[in-house]
Amino acid sequence: MAQPLTVVIFGASGDLTGRKLIPALFNLAIKKRLPPEARILGVARSEFTDDSFREQIVTKVKDAFKSSGEEWKADEWAEFAKRLHYVSADVTKPGGVAPIQQWFTANEGGENGRRVYYLSISPELYPQVSTALGEAGLSQENGGFRRLVIEKPFGHDLATAKALNEALHKHWRESQLYRIDHYLGKETVQNILVFRFANTLFEPLWNYQYIDHVQITVAETVTVGKRGAYYDGSGVLRDMFQSHLLQVLSLVAMESPARHSADTLRNEKVKVLDSVVIPSFDQACQSVSVGQYAGYRSEPGVPGTTKTPTYAAIKLNIDNARWKNVPFYLRSGKGMKSRYSEVFIQYHCPPHLLFPLPPGETLKCNHMRLVLQPNEGIDLNFQTKVPSVDGVALQPRDLAFNYKDAYATKALPEAYERLLLDAIQGDASLFMRSDEIERAWEIMDPIIQASERAETPQPMEYAVGSQGPDCADKLMAADGRAWNPII
Amino acid sequence: MAQPLTVVIFGASGDLTGRKLIPALFNLAIKKRLPPEARILGVARSEFTDDSFREQIVTKVKDAFKSSGEEWKADEWAEFAKRLHYVSADVTKPGGVAPIQQWFTANEGGENGRRVYYLSISPELYPQVSTALGEAGLSQENGGFRRLVIEKPFGHDLATAKALNEALHKHWRESQLYRIDHYLGKETVQNILVFRFANTLFEPLWNYQYIDHVQITVAETVTVGKRGAYYDGSGVLRDMFQSHLLQVLSLVAMESPARHSADTLRNEKVKVLDSVVIPSFDQACQSVSVGQYAGYRSEPGVPGTTKTPTYAAIKLNIDNARWKNVPFYLRSGKGMKSRYSEVFIQYHCPPHLLFPLPPGETLKCNHMRLVLQPNEGIDLNFQTKVPSVDGVALQPRDLAFNYKDAYATKALPEAYERLLLDAIQGDASLFMRSDEIERAWEIMDPIIQASERAETPQPMEYAVGSQGPDCADKLMAADGRAWNPII
Repeated sequence: MAQPLTVVIFGASGDLTGRKLIPALFNLAIKKRLPPEARILGVARSEFTDDSFREQIVTKVKDAFKSSGEEWKADEWAEFAKRLHYVSADVTKPGGVAPIQQWFTANEGGENGRRVYYLSISPELYPQVSTALGEAGLSQENGGFRRLVIEKPFGHDLATAKALNEALHKHWRESQLYRIDHYLGKETVQNILVFRFANTLFEPLWNYQYIDHVQITVAETVTVGKRGAYYDGSGVLRDMFQSHLLQVLSLVAMESPARHSADTLRNEKVKVLDSVVIPSFDQACQSVSVGQYAGYRSEPGVPGTTKTPTYAAIKLNIDNARWKNVPFYLRSGKGMKSRYSEVFIQYHCPPHLLFPLPPGETLKCNHMRLVLQPNEGIDLNFQTKVPSVDGVALQPRDLAFNYKDAYATKALPEAYERLLLDAIQGDASLFMRSDEIERAWEIMDPIIQASERAETPQPMEYAVGSQGPDCADKLMAADGRAWNPII
Repeated sequence: MAQPLTVVIFGASGDLTGRKLIPALFNLAIKKRLPPEARILGVARSEFTDDSFREQIVTKVKDAFKSSGEEWKADEWAEFAKRLHYVSADVTKPGGVAPIQQWFTANEGGENGRRVYYLSISPELYPQVSTALGEAGLSQENGGFRRLVIEKPFGHDLATAKALNEALHKHWRESQLYRIDHYLGKETVQNILVFRFANTLFEPLWNYQYIDHVQITVAETVTVGKRGAYYDGSGVLRDMFQSHLLQVLSLVAMESPARHSADTLRNEKVKVLDSVVIPSFDQACQSVSVGQYAGYRSEPGVPGTTKTPTYAAIKLNIDNARWKNVPFYLRSGKGMKSRYSEVFIQYHCPPHLLFPLPPGETLKCNHMRLVLQPNEGIDLNFQTKVPSVDGVALQPRDLAFNYKDAYATKALPEAYERLLLDAIQGDASLFMRSDEIERAWEIMDPIIQASERAETPQPMEYAVGSQGPDCADKLMAADGRAWNPII
């Protein structure tokens, strides 16, 4: 009999569990990628039996399948549901871990159970719950692995992130910790490394000699909705930049790892983040543009005087040999024109223009778009000869690759499928190490502080459905550049 | 009134005139690109009036439009036909030029007529006709330009090409001579220079450090048909390599011209041809593979013992700093799988493979296809991450550009439209200079001689509709390489 394997989800009655985690595990089972011995143990305060847990979760999973356009497979679900179990427990209370321990004793037949603990709970409970598990001996790998998966946010600033890491490290070794940034689970984000390091054509030009600047965009159409009170305590700089945008930046900008392994990869990410110039307070005031979408201050739960930005654009420099004088412009916002994420590489112009241009025209120099979502793909914009019976006129066109077309698939795998399977298989490549988290906060702290000081004016308003506030355009225009429009 | 402008076509009753030249001029008129004052004067021995010439040519032009799928515009033709004139003359006879001179006197109202003489006649008549025109003073530019357009073949080998150039130069300055290689009129061939020199992305990798080798393919499906007697006197090495393939090679391999002008461009083409290593007789025997399609020796007009190749593959080296150790493999044949022309660039593999491959698998390293015909475009084949919930598996896919899709057009302009308009406008960029022609023969002469010597075995037979003879594959295999299959 296979060694027992359990994915324990704390916060099993919560939104993420029904919307993402159970659908991802179910999809892994459908694809025969979930180990056959794997069971899922839901834990929350609510009173459920295994059966009533299964009954209430199935409607949420069906909804998730419906909204992602996946076909519902009733017989597959019936098979999968047998692997779902439930224990009611309040781990924040003294002795609260006991019911879970009893379940392990009853169901694992010994101490060799392999376990992934997934904290799908409120972040302020991470220290308490991880400590309770540790004190009860549940972090001890005395037979099978014991891993702890946690979701962002990892702290509110550098100081709180350090405190969280310290609390976690009391009972858990760093190698047991799997900090999820779901952006790293996206196919297109993972493909950045393949694109750069499994090809001959791109890496030789991936430096200051050929690249003028880089833009990284993560645009959302959604507004804060009912999450205003929570969001206003965080804002776009903490919510998106410290995590997703700096993660994408590190993959785009890093050197090649020594080999493809979790630590060599994360060493390089930390290394390039170490080369990101931390702006001084004055620089941060100049190189950051923040905005609030029109109506944000009237959202339920949002104070009418809030300065929390729902949009930001920042300019970062990387002080190393590869990226000398190549600014990285990062932007992200809610309530924008479309849901759209891309890495945009603007190349320098050719050193000599052989073909004369009509008076007043300038050459559109090469650029490349790595589209992370929704139309995942790569476009390389280059100059072509306009078909004509005389002369040589130039127009740019795309060399284009579309991920779904190229692989004849309707959808790419969900990030959570990838990341849950990686945690089960012990591959931490796509999870964040404590030093990455802390360095990302070191970079963001002065920028966030600049945006929050008393004398900072209100963030500039921008219309819902727009490209963002004017000040973000001015940030680029000051350097003689422009954002690639969100399409 | 505009200075008179006449395109004089010698051989006006011939195949090329009805199939290509008049359709091209008609299309230029439809596109309003033919100067409004331009008239076309057909010259041949046959007796026609202007009207009967128009009557017989219209059926040929209609056929040409039909076979290229173009819509016939009767009213446009009626308008265009008014510009067609005819003079019956046999220029090879003493005084044969007189009727043409009389037409000029009657129709140009003086000596300032601008004229393009187009020799659409048997190549062995070039010296005689060009001399007759020169002796009659028709090459004198005493008021308007007088240009002479001639079609390949330009000689049968270096000696005859030199003799032809000498004969032409007796009455014509080099700048009056427009030697047509219709391959240079193709949009995709012209686009090679734009691709290379108006972009940042490709030229830095366009050298021996990044390119392993280059393949140039011009494959035809047609067999010799009724032209066996003519073809057998020439063969694929003279018919295709000395002209089209070496022209494409020179555009792919040359350095950037100082500026975009006829002579700076042709200087660079000559320069790179000067760097092509002329194989010794022994080398030519090794680095050339020749074939005959099955049934060639039974074609009408073809001697049953002929050694004339209908297919050849050759390997050339370019002895300069850019192309050190980068072989150029050229192949062309009749009776092949499809009508297909491409430049195929095989890049080196990445210097370090970050991602482990499954045992026994090797990485498919980047390549690029510049498809010249029929699906004109560019494909850049690169490695992508296979969408998957775990691990990193690699598969190659294309970054693709299709000329017709990108410009939303059903067909690209015909090479003859381009070249006729260039000759009228005096742009010789896409025509071949005498030194280019002679250097191309210098390169081909030993190869042709090797294929024709008595002890050379019969060319290897290959099936009609195939990829060519086995020996061509062995030529590549000996270098550890393979042809990109003709699709």
